[in-house]
This record gives sequence, structure tokens and C-alpha cells, in this order.
Amino acid sequence: MINIIHRVGIKAPAQKVYEAIATIEGIAGWWTESTSGVSEIGKTVVVRFHTLEGNEIGSMNMEVTALDPGKKVQWKFTAGPEEWINTNAVFELHEEGDYTIVLFSHLGWREAVEFMAHCSMKWGIFMMSLKQLVETGKGKPSPNDIKIDNWN
Amino acid sequence: MINIIHRVGIKAPAQKVYEAIATIEGIAGWWTESTSGVSEIGKTVVVRFHTLEGNEIGSMNMEVTALDPGKKVQWKFTAGPEEWINTNAVFELHEEGDYTIVLFSHLGWREAVEFMAHCSMKWGIFMMSLKQLVETGKGKPSPNDIKIDNWN
Repeated sequence: MINIIHRVGIKAPAQKVYEAIATIEGIAGWWTESTSGVSEIGKTVVVRFHTLEGNEIGSMNMEVTALDPGKKVQWKFTAGPEEWINTNAVFELHEEGDYTIVLFSHLGWREAVEFMAHCSMKWGIFMMSLKQLVETGKGKPSPNDIKIDNWN
Repeated sequence: MINIIHRVGIKAPAQKVYEAIATIEGIAGWWTESTSGVSEIGKTVVVRFHTLEGNEIGSMNMEVTALDPGKKVQWKFTAGPEEWINTNAVFELHEEGDYTIVLFSHLGWREAVEFMAHCSMKWGIFMMSLKQLVETGKGKPSPNDIKIDNWN
């Protein structure tokens, strides 16, 4: 399997980090302001990405496949970029001292294409946005996300 | 093979990006201030990492294995963390409009361990530092690098 993996440490209890990943309001605070749907097992969450001028540049649907409070969130992508279909995003949490460690994986890429390299960088940027949201109350979700290249 | 891959776009000519990766002065501007050695094919570059108080927290030696001006730089790690020995870092450059695209790979991890997930995030942070260095003249090399977790 070809996977993206990242590790980030957030100075907050695991339950607080979990809520930022497991709820619509949380996701909207670090990934994209346009997050909707229902974050319950078997239900679908929809994330949409826009330019600062409001033009949609992409979207994904994800089925929530794991919600283990304070420990794990998992999504299976069911619509969006062709390369993402049937891949899974997993967030595993554990506490170490003052930190909650997030082990993030985006699992099951079919090929290590250039778009995967873009997504790997961009997930890193969004993990820092998640860290900022939980530690300071304010993340940098799309459309105010940090741009990394000519794709976004 | 288990690899880290990232894509970053830098608003500058490829030759300028290349110089930031292919020279000791360049590397010291985005990765770690403590960069020494000789950046020539077959020679060794040494990077050392310190805390803000000046305590060394790690170092790597890398043999320069490719230097293709404006196009490619490759390093083979010959000393440092055990997991890095004999892995390779590759920077492939090409221009797209106003951007130079850097396709970065850290190739040949033996296992997708937690330390690899940390390094993947951290390489993303350093790619943004490289982008800032080339675009603005000032990156964020160690020891003033952005910290991502309880390891660094």
C-alpha cells in the first residue's frame, strides 16, 4: 500500500483534539469552512473548497467509519478526486505528557503520483492548522489555508 | 519501497531554487543554520540540529550523489538516525508558468514507523521554509524551525 503518514503533537487533552476531528464544527475550523453533513458512523460528511472569491475548486464526500472518543476517527472517501475514491483517512490519538499525539494516515493510494505529493504537503499544512485551532482557538481552514504551489 | 513525497511550488526561476538546495549557504538558509562540508558529487555535507539554547539534538551526514543544475539534487544519508542510513533525498525541479515545482522524495524507508510520520511532517515544514527563503530571502532553518510535536 502507498500511504501518506504524518505525526503532529498538540498541547491539549486528547478529548479536545478528538472533538476538532469528529465534529462538523471542528473540521470547519481547520480543514475547510464549507463542511456539512453528519459526523456519525455510516453517515456522510461533505467538504467543499473555494477560492477567496467563492469559486468552488473541489469537494469530497467521506463516510465516517470509526469514531472512538479520544482515540480514533476514520473516514472513507466516496466521492471527490478520482485518486481519493476508496482511500481512507485515519486519525489515531494518544497522550504523551502535555501533548496529544495525532498519527495521521491517508491510506490506500494506488500510485505515488504528483497529486499525492501535493496532498501530502497539503495534509501537513492542515495538520498545523488543526494544531493551531486546538491550541489557540483559530485554525487556517480553506479558503484561508496556506497555499503551497500552483495547484492550491 | 516506503517513501515520503511532497510537492511545493516556488515563485522563482529553477536556477535560484536549485542554488538554495545545491549549496551549503542555501541549505543553511532553510534546513539548519549548522550546515557544513562540501556540496560536490561524492563529497559529504553535514547538517547539525540544535535547541535554541545550543544543545545538539541530532545530525546527519549525506553524500551528494546528483547535482544537475536547475533540475536535480540528490543526497544519500551515510550517518545519522539509524532509520535514515542508506535512504536518499531527491529534489527534482521543473518550471510551470511563474513557479518552479519541487518534487521532493525521501526514498527507501524500511518501515513506516512513527518517526517516519514525524519526518514527513517536518520535511513539509522545511519545504515551506525553502519556499520562504527563495521567495522572500529569509527561511526558518533550525534552531528557529517551526516545532510540530514533542520530538521537535
